[in-house]
Amino acid sequence: MERLLDGSLSEAPSFLLARANARSLAQGNAALVPLKLKVRSYAVLALACGPERPSQKELAQFLRLDPSQVVALVDDLEAQGLVERTTDQADRRTKVVVATDIGREREREARAALDEADTIVFRSLTAAERAALAALLRSVALDD
Amino acid sequence: MERLLDGSLSEAPSFLLARANARSLAQGNAALVPLKLKVRSYAVLALACGPERPSQKELAQFLRLDPSQVVALVDDLEAQGLVERTTDQADRRTKVVVATDIGREREREARAALDEADTIVFRSLTAAERAALAALLRSVALDD
Repeated sequence: MERLLDGSLSEAPSFLLARANARSLAQGNAALVPLKLKVRSYAVLALACGPERPSQKELAQFLRLDPSQVVALVDDLEAQGLVERTTDQADRRTKVVVATDIGREREREARAALDEADTIVFRSLTAAERAALAALLRSVALDD
Repeated sequence: MERLLDGSLSEAPSFLLARANARSLAQGNAALVPLKLKVRSYAVLALACGPERPSQKELAQFLRLDPSQVVALVDDLEAQGLVERTTDQADRRTKVVVATDIGREREREARAALDEADTIVFRSLTAAERAALAALLRSVALDD
């Protein structure tokens, strides 16, 4: 398999991005198994813990998922008692997704598990390189 | 939606990686529509153009896909006349995936289209930053 690394594909930044992300997803999902979460459901939970009180539509846009995927993720988190769909105080026609106390506790545990997974994913980098990578990715990721 | 960016999720390197990859995939797939390819089928085609003559099993391992996904991708490329499944000369029990002449031509066109997509995805970076990002991603992506 390593012999395939010599090809021109391994030079393309988009390929390297996809492969690094595949490693990160696999490590992250494995780390979250004991907490009954996946990287995607964790992202929804983390956003539901913030002060922003996102709607499902905002979650879909921000996480670049289909609305139907977000509904399924919120259903799963709600069934576990980690989030609630509640009426937006500013616009009573909109439902927003807010973490429960159990959800906030689970989010902290999950964040610790993901931080540990990240130390494995990024173990080949020094702290300075890791910070440089995060800054470069932020520039690419948030350029819309 | 932008208000969600202030949360701690936007600090996590794994989240930034996922979001940058989502942008890259969307741009890449859009660029490949006229060539009847997607980023995933392009990766298979590009590897089939190399001198390594990969088996379907090697393609699955290298691209971190299920074997069934690789079979579907090779089926699609074969139906378009871009690759052939042929017997490995070193091990006659193994089938390897090799690009046809039409496939090699399509691969060159696709690579040009993806290079153009990459200029959009990475437009916020200078050439030096882009090279630094590629080097850091390579270190993370190929650390197995």
